[in-house]
Amino acid sequence: MEYYSSQISKLMEELASLPGIGSKSAQRLAFHILNMPVEQAQGLSSAIIEARKNVRYCSMCYTLTDEELCPICRNGYRNHKMIMVVEDTRDLAAYEKTNKYDGVYHVLHGAISPMLGIGPNDIKLKELMQRLQGEVEEVIIATNSSLEGETTAMYISKLIKPTGIKVSRIASGVPVGGDLEYIDEMTLLRALEGRTEL
Amino acid sequence: MEYYSSQISKLMEELASLPGIGSKSAQRLAFHILNMPVEQAQGLSSAIIEARKNVRYCSMCYTLTDEELCPICRNGYRNHKMIMVVEDTRDLAAYEKTNKYDGVYHVLHGAISPMLGIGPNDIKLKELMQRLQGEVEEVIIATNSSLEGETTAMYISKLIKPTGIKVSRIASGVPVGGDLEYIDEMTLLRALEGRTEL
Repeated sequence: MEYYSSQISKLMEELASLPGIGSKSAQRLAFHILNMPVEQAQGLSSAIIEARKNVRYCSMCYTLTDEELCPICRNGYRNHKMIMVVEDTRDLAAYEKTNKYDGVYHVLHGAISPMLGIGPNDIKLKELMQRLQGEVEEVIIATNSSLEGETTAMYISKLIKPTGIKVSRIASGVPVGGDLEYIDEMTLLRALEGRTEL
Repeated sequence: MEYYSSQISKLMEELASLPGIGSKSAQRLAFHILNMPVEQAQGLSSAIIEARKNVRYCSMCYTLTDEELCPICRNGYRNHKMIMVVEDTRDLAAYEKTNKYDGVYHVLHGAISPMLGIGPNDIKLKELMQRLQGEVEEVIIATNSSLEGETTAMYISKLIKPTGIKVSRIASGVPVGGDLEYIDEMTLLRALEGRTEL
């Protein structure tokens, strides 16, 4: 891109290195930024570096946060005896959007995957077991319904069972609004197995 | 987004304010940034603010650049007697990608639009006329082939005609209503080769 001066090229390259941003989008974003008021560009720039520098794991649930405890772990109105185990912070956010879950979370930051060489010690599992020393009534396993997610769910449930704490797994089945015709066989089988009496 | 701590929310909001980035993409980008090595986040952050702070108009052709003169105006191998007039820097970049045009440019930063109240004095037209005091053999008008682009082309050609300098318009190989930025190199080349004198 030698027809752009070096700082414009640099900006485009940095933007194009982000996931899902191709060279055309990077160019469009770069020109948008070059035409922003300086304060707005400053805002974007500092949001990036401040977030990256200050964000760390919540010391309780290991979600990403910029304080010692995340807003959910700090919230006295949540049910701290019910822990939902998720693979990453985005999964936590997905459940929070339902506005119906009032328990707390535990973020594993990954799932067990023998194929990728990710074992139980590579995710925040020890940390989950430590939390179970306290007053916990139920652990809801909400890892993805992929091979890795299922493996992780099985592993965790076997680990927790002996403690006597209730362990559950979110149901898998046909998504709400889903058309049976377009749903894969595995999902249809799961939906059948998990059928509930009406 | 109160389930994210404030700096994560801030980063997502800043990203979501960019064109073409919705809340889902902003979330994905934010987590990507949070997981970057600090130096990389620093690089992105400073590319944004440095580019925004230092980029200005080339004092000759008015393209965006971070130096007094842009790389093209500084280049002694280019034909400085041939000036291609474009609406903005992205259009210049589009022609540069063809690798066949060896003249220089003049960036208007807009087009005449009576509807939007943009007149000849609102674009870099005076600056173009000043450049014609020097040794110029041809002015190629490569404004978009939209109503505003055509209006601007007509206006400029009428202004230049009396000076005796050759004025041409890129051919209508460019689809009517098309935006130069998104047109493939071959079409752009055809349009250049088939330019007609106005």
